[in-house]
Amino acid sequence: MTHPVVLTLNAGSSSLKFGLYAIDGAPVEMAMGLIEAIGRQPRLKAEFGGAAPAVTRDLAAAEAADHASALDTALGLLRAQFPQAQATAVGHRVVHGGPGFDAPVVVDDAVMAELKRLSPFAPLHQPHNIAGIEAAQAAFPDALQVACFDTAFHRRHPKVNDVFALPREYYDKGVRRYGFHGLSYDYISGELGRIAPLLHDGRVIVAHLGNGASMCALQNGRSIASTMGFTALDGLPMGTRTGQIDPGVIFYLVQQEGLSIDEVRQLFYTKSGLLGLSGLSNDMRTLEAAGTQEANEAIDYFVFRIRRELGGLAAALGGLDALVFCGGIGENSRLIRERVCEGMGWLGIELDRGRNTENATVISTDLSRARILVIPTNEELVIARAAKGFLDAAV
Amino acid sequence: MTHPVVLTLNAGSSSLKFGLYAIDGAPVEMAMGLIEAIGRQPRLKAEFGGAAPAVTRDLAAAEAADHASALDTALGLLRAQFPQAQATAVGHRVVHGGPGFDAPVVVDDAVMAELKRLSPFAPLHQPHNIAGIEAAQAAFPDALQVACFDTAFHRRHPKVNDVFALPREYYDKGVRRYGFHGLSYDYISGELGRIAPLLHDGRVIVAHLGNGASMCALQNGRSIASTMGFTALDGLPMGTRTGQIDPGVIFYLVQQEGLSIDEVRQLFYTKSGLLGLSGLSNDMRTLEAAGTQEANEAIDYFVFRIRRELGGLAAALGGLDALVFCGGIGENSRLIRERVCEGMGWLGIELDRGRNTENATVISTDLSRARILVIPTNEELVIARAAKGFLDAAV
Repeated sequence: MTHPVVLTLNAGSSSLKFGLYAIDGAPVEMAMGLIEAIGRQPRLKAEFGGAAPAVTRDLAAAEAADHASALDTALGLLRAQFPQAQATAVGHRVVHGGPGFDAPVVVDDAVMAELKRLSPFAPLHQPHNIAGIEAAQAAFPDALQVACFDTAFHRRHPKVNDVFALPREYYDKGVRRYGFHGLSYDYISGELGRIAPLLHDGRVIVAHLGNGASMCALQNGRSIASTMGFTALDGLPMGTRTGQIDPGVIFYLVQQEGLSIDEVRQLFYTKSGLLGLSGLSNDMRTLEAAGTQEANEAIDYFVFRIRRELGGLAAALGGLDALVFCGGIGENSRLIRERVCEGMGWLGIELDRGRNTENATVISTDLSRARILVIPTNEELVIARAAKGFLDAAV
Repeated sequence: MTHPVVLTLNAGSSSLKFGLYAIDGAPVEMAMGLIEAIGRQPRLKAEFGGAAPAVTRDLAAAEAADHASALDTALGLLRAQFPQAQATAVGHRVVHGGPGFDAPVVVDDAVMAELKRLSPFAPLHQPHNIAGIEAAQAAFPDALQVACFDTAFHRRHPKVNDVFALPREYYDKGVRRYGFHGLSYDYISGELGRIAPLLHDGRVIVAHLGNGASMCALQNGRSIASTMGFTALDGLPMGTRTGQIDPGVIFYLVQQEGLSIDEVRQLFYTKSGLLGLSGLSNDMRTLEAAGTQEANEAIDYFVFRIRRELGGLAAALGGLDALVFCGGIGENSRLIRERVCEGMGWLGIELDRGRNTENATVISTDLSRARILVIPTNEELVIARAAKGFLDAAV
């Protein structure tokens, strides 16, 4: 007897995150795992919701030589643990949905062609997402393949938040402020609706602070503005990415310092951000523990840019009713939350230090005009729900 | 009998603005003129404070073939009008003072060498500023040459406003958020101190909105943050410049669309901004009169980005006591001021429409928590004062 499940896949440039969901009712997580350093010295981590001991082990190079073999390895693990499970749908995180996709979509040949056409917008990520879908099509030829886009949640931005001040033909060609982390913001919007429906309908800023980081302004639960733009490089500084930077710096580095455009791209994506400023690490935990001047300056800058975007997004919303922290740093760093909120009374934000230290869900004081919340995000669950939705509709 | 005066020069890429100041006491403007389209079809405009009829005429190509001959032409005009005037100091606007210059300076050989060393930071403007100084040295070998920097007023930014999230060696090399329009902000800060000393000591945002546009956060009359960064390209959209843009757009245009880096630079500096979005004009007056969808979208975007930076700079200040408009658009466009202030009550801003329509100095309501002011700026007077200051100190 088989048991229908949904598999979720999130293929990064050298990683594959996978989840397994029971779908008798609303999706329930059965397993979550990650294969890192694909093609180098791959490692596997997986958890089974307590139903079985967690797994952490180094893989042989051949077990994850590329995304397809990494998927085989993940599926082998899942089949051994859940022999009755049968994937009736596979949900994929796809970084770029272009101007067109404003919701998840079932992948057919036309959709696949469009995803490939969008690759130049996200050349470092989109090809891996596509490879993940193709590998899943081969492994589960009868399953529904569902693409869930990081950009889709933002597609109804007002035009002032969608456009750059370039000649108009570039907008028509797709050079727009897409915004990313949409699956996370979608999840947070839903959770906020469950926890605090009135706040959900108000003016909300969500700070998704992880190794990638961005912020999103929500009105009535919908994105109206984001700190990320055309690519996942803009906005807040990140683990190794610059965030907002004067475009003139690129002209200077190429035309005056003699760097190639590809060297500048590598610099901006992989050697900058917290790592570049601290000279130490891209990991906030390491920086908080370090206490060096350089590490402190990296933290100062990270906090300052969050505060500045908080003011900018509040202007887009016309004020603020709630601020939500999520992502690895947002969910775990009391220090960052405290420093972001410090002296923000002018915006109606007043942090309760005790609640913040306890990692409570609501960490503002009772008198704070704007609520401050910490909500753990769950992008995989958004993907599983979308896949389940298509399965239900297909019945 | 000769009469000591200060000459001010502001050399752009194809223009030369010149002013003449009596310096018996505080500098008083005697003449102000502009030669445009140097090296092409030059034109001259000059005014003499009502002492003589204004001049507007096309020049022969040879009268302004380059900056040196344009200066000769300007001096000929001034000498004919004011035969007794003798320039004892020449004050120059210099776009880039690098990390070192935080105040005006008398130009000697060491300073000149440093100005040349900084040229790669502003390759489109600095060489013309230097050429202007050299031409003035030749014309007035005995006069004091004084350099006044667009960047100097911002040099005491806190480090979070000075740095990009790049590896630390780039900061040491001078890749920093300099900020520009410093002469204008310096003037406004002084005027605010005269008009409203208590506001001057508070939290003030100045919006310098002209063909170039930026905003500056002042605390106690000093700049603590600006929307412009390493170059005059960042921040607000301008007549023909992009303002803030995702650096990923450059990688896309070069690596996917095949543009050269110089084509992208030309695009960002000369074909973008209001001109690019409207497809019509870089001039706000033309756009306001046009009423087309494209012109309206360009205005919408301009206003929106000002509002977003207003929120961001308020965060840097921890709230807002006053907003000051200046520059050609800030001083003259009632529409832009009205739309920037609309629905900004959350920030304590409440515009008085009547006062705004009358172009009053204070255009906020009496109950507005933050004051809104319109103060015509005067960069040349700041230069003249600096030059006069060095003359007084030398006596």
